[in-house]
Order: sequence, then C-alpha cells, then structure tokens
Amino acid sequence: MHTSLFTITTLGTGAALPARGRFPTSQLVNIHDNYYLVDCGEGTQERLRAVGFNFQRIGHIFISHLHGDHYLGLLGLISSMHLMGRQTPLHVYGPPELKPIIDLQLRASGTYLRYPLHVRSIEPTSGEVIHTDAHVTVSTLALRHRIPCTGFVFREQPGQRRLRTERVSDIPRFKRAAVKQGEDLEFPDGTRMTNAELTLDPMPARSYAYCSDTAYEPALIPFIQGVGLLYHEATFTTAMAARAKETLHSTAAQAAQLAKEAAVGQLLLGHFSSRYKSADVLLKEALPVFPRTLLSYEGGSFTVGTTQ
Amino acid sequence: MHTSLFTITTLGTGAALPARGRFPTSQLVNIHDNYYLVDCGEGTQERLRAVGFNFQRIGHIFISHLHGDHYLGLLGLISSMHLMGRQTPLHVYGPPELKPIIDLQLRASGTYLRYPLHVRSIEPTSGEVIHTDAHVTVSTLALRHRIPCTGFVFREQPGQRRLRTERVSDIPRFKRAAVKQGEDLEFPDGTRMTNAELTLDPMPARSYAYCSDTAYEPALIPFIQGVGLLYHEATFTTAMAARAKETLHSTAAQAAQLAKEAAVGQLLLGHFSSRYKSADVLLKEALPVFPRTLLSYEGGSFTVGTTQ
Repeated sequence: MHTSLFTITTLGTGAALPARGRFPTSQLVNIHDNYYLVDCGEGTQERLRAVGFNFQRIGHIFISHLHGDHYLGLLGLISSMHLMGRQTPLHVYGPPELKPIIDLQLRASGTYLRYPLHVRSIEPTSGEVIHTDAHVTVSTLALRHRIPCTGFVFREQPGQRRLRTERVSDIPRFKRAAVKQGEDLEFPDGTRMTNAELTLDPMPARSYAYCSDTAYEPALIPFIQGVGLLYHEATFTTAMAARAKETLHSTAAQAAQLAKEAAVGQLLLGHFSSRYKSADVLLKEALPVFPRTLLSYEGGSFTVGTTQ
Repeated sequence: MHTSLFTITTLGTGAALPARGRFPTSQLVNIHDNYYLVDCGEGTQERLRAVGFNFQRIGHIFISHLHGDHYLGLLGLISSMHLMGRQTPLHVYGPPELKPIIDLQLRASGTYLRYPLHVRSIEPTSGEVIHTDAHVTVSTLALRHRIPCTGFVFREQPGQRRLRTERVSDIPRFKRAAVKQGEDLEFPDGTRMTNAELTLDPMPARSYAYCSDTAYEPALIPFIQGVGLLYHEATFTTAMAARAKETLHSTAAQAAQLAKEAAVGQLLLGHFSSRYKSADVLLKEALPVFPRTLLSYEGGSFTVGTTQ
C-alpha cells in the first residue's frame, strides 16, 4: 500500500467558454506533499483559495497551451505570490510565446518580482523529460490541437525496497537504510542473507497523464501506456463528433477508447462544453467503452493509483 | 426628476491582492441603457454573469492602468465575447502598452476575432475628450500613481428642454419635438408664445468621475468639480498614511477631502486593502470629512445624481 499522497485536484472543468458554474482548466497535483500546478485558467488563484490551499506551496507550473482558458490566470497568480512576499523560486513551463507574454505584462505593470521566476519553453513533443526532482519526473506529450499543445506525464520516482515484515527483527537498525537500497546482509557469525530474502520490490511507481486539449491521438499510447490515472478532455458527445474533429477536441467515447487502448488504471474526464448542463451525458458515453471512468468536478480530488 | 438611468455597478472592491471575498476592480456604467465598462480585473466576466448581465451589451471598455488587478480579466472577456458570436464592434481605451499585450495574446492563441476590436491609446492627461456618443462624453483625469494611470469623467449629454405641464395641451403634437429643441410657437390666430413660456430648462446633466488608483491629487479638482458622484480609491486608513504615500494610494480621509474640495454630490469609496476585514473602518474616517460618502460593495449598484 502506498502511504504517501499522489492526488489531483481539479479546480475547473469547463471548456473555452466559462458557464454553468464551471471554471476554466487548472489542476493541482500533489506528490508526497509537493505541489505542481497544471494549466492556470482565469480565476485559478480564487479557486485555490476556495479549496483552502496556500498557493505559495506551488513550486512548478506547467502550461499546456496558450488558449485563454488554460493560462489567463497565470499573471494574477504570479503577481499575488509576489504581493504576498514570496521569495522561493517559481518554475513555469510553457510554449515559447509564454515568456514574452509574462515579461511584457510585468514590465507594463512596473513589477519587479521579489522571487526568482524561471520560465522555460517546451515544445510539443512526446517523451521529453522537462523536470525531475526527488519526487517526480515530468515528461511531455504531443497533443493534437489547433495550436501547439503539450500534455504532461507525472511519474513518481521509484521508491526504496521494502523490508519483509518477518525479517525486520533480524536486521540491525543501522543496516536498514542500506538493505532498503539493495545490499545483502552478512551476520557476525559469517552467515549471509541475500537482499531478495530480506526485502520486497518497491511499491510500483504511480503515474498520471494529463491530456487537454486534444483530438483523439493514438500516437500518445506508447507514452501513456499503463498510467494509473489518465486525465483526458471530453469536450463533446458523439453526436458532436464532427464539431470535435473540426475543433481538434475529443468526444467522451474517444477519450475512453484511448484509455482502453493504453490500458490505464482510471480515466478522468473534463473540459466539458458549456452546452452540457450536466456532464453525466459524457460519462454515459464513456463507461461502455472504458468502465473505470470518473467525471472531474470543481474542487474534486482524485487519487492516482497503479494498474498493478 | 431624471427618468433615464445613470447607474454604476461596482463588480469588485478589492485592492491588488484579492482576498476576503473582494474581487479586483471593475465597474459597469449604465447611461440610458448603454453600457460602459471601467477597468476589468481578473474574473470580471464571471462577476458580470453573477449580476445577471449580458456582457455583449458593453460597447466601450476603459482601462485606467496596467496593474493586474485592473485589467487581467480583459483578454478573457474579449475571448468570451468572440466565442459567444459577437459581431458588433468593441472599443477599448487604455495605456499604449495595452494594444501589444492584447495582440500578442490573441496571436499566441490563434484567435481571429469575428468582431471589430478597436484598441486606442490614452495618455494620462486631464480634460481630454476620448469618447463621445449620443448619451455621454468621456474625458480623462491625470491620476497620480506608480505607473501611468488615467481616471475618467462620464458626462451625460444635455437633455432636451422640458414642456411645461400646464402648456402641454396648448402645443400641437407635431410641434412638440421642435419646441423641446427650443422653438417658439405661432398659433393659427397669429398669437405667439416664446419657448421660455412653453418649456423649462433641461434637467441638469449628470456626471460621474472615476479615480482609481491615485494618491491624493488636488490638481484633479477643476476636472471633477461638482460631479454628481465621485468614485475615489480608499486603500488605507489614516494610520497607514505613510504606506499610502509610498505606494501612491489614498487614505479614506484623503478621498473625502478631495470630494469636499471638489464639492461633489456623493463620494463612493473602493479599492480596499485586504488588511481590512470590513471597509467600515474606512467609511468611519471619511464621514467626518465628507458626510455624503458611500462604501462600494461586490455587485452594488449606485445612482448618479446631480449637485443641483
């Protein structure tokens, strides 16, 4: 059993046009109490307050693309972090035009940030590692949308080997860290125990893939194969498949199809068109294709599991 | 009595840092059912929905300055107007950097607006007429802030002369429009009545002045003298006067002092620092200086009167 957290909080589930109480896209990713923000639509700072989260704890922000509903809240968040006295660095990843947009607006407002802001360009490729730290590796997904658009895979760093319960008392305390890292054990009487006798494999690393906005894109499959949780946009029902194709969005059934082909653990749907009063109509179309499908909702929290 | 509307709806009353349920600055000005937006902080489109207003009715938007809490909602609003099928022109007035900011972001999002968007540069001068239509003349106010910042005066166009109730039956229907425009009347028997005998002066034109963000600035007085309603920022209490001076904001007492010196009809306070849980503390400091002071609040509506 995983004892450390890996959760996703969906702050907004709307598509381009905010309506019906839905907010634009933003997600807070919590990996072992380290916080990453994915996309940052208008009002995200307000949404973070609404879920009672201190947004100064966010260290990294990943912007998928420059449609307004995915990034127009970024400047306000950057500015509020500044006004609230932030000093720790903030890392922002996004399309190449993001840095000039931020710089122009900071300059126009005469703002000199008191904390280091690092804005890095990402290209819409797949499988490129853009960030790694003690808890996670973040890599890219080449989504298929009207403008360059990048998805993200968050892969938990592999954990340590786990001591077998029945052997714990055999292992001197000062040796436990080494054994968890794979060492064998030699006792004072010369007998040995192999690491395999002492430990179990680490818990399988969990992973989360974020795919918004995109048409159905089977080229993603090798990169999201077997992730514990796949977030995939589901803007339209099948009745609107032509519109989905035209705008390079997905239907709920297409999202489910991709989840099935990639054999993911669970599928989380979002980015619902304002034409749908309730997103249930989208869930109903996804479930027959992929039964482990969930609907995101404003402020909803979802646990990332594994497929093993 | 004025029978046509001239009202201000205050959509947000917060200062730079949104908190305590306050939203950033934006005001909807209704003059004879024509709509003008002044400033457009993050989330303004959401606030307009919250007061049940169809924002496609806005024809002109005036941006005072480029601090984020006064304009970061503009791109989202422009974009939503587009997505909702707007075809009528939108006129935006703001600092010179506003147009490149809008253009850069529209380009980055691949958005080709279906309606004409006219963005005009304004300079922080006083008394320059920047817009005039059948209902209103809008002129500038040189505010005193850390970056170039322009206030606005909305002056209702003068109305027609009003028929004296006791004379209405004497005036043939087909002559009434001409009489309202100042003509005398000649009856078939050759007798004449002068226009002064037939009509009263037009109702005094009403006016509204918007001053945010600014330090106490007596140079504004000639330009706001006698306006029916003055909106003036009141970020701080007198205890924070040094901070107000440093940041080029005003205390509530300074706002009241300006209202008094300019002999305005009423004073409306806003832009309250997040340090004040309730804005009552600001009202209490303003009232002894200028008794006809009101506090703005989220979604509040205020009628513009006259000083006559």
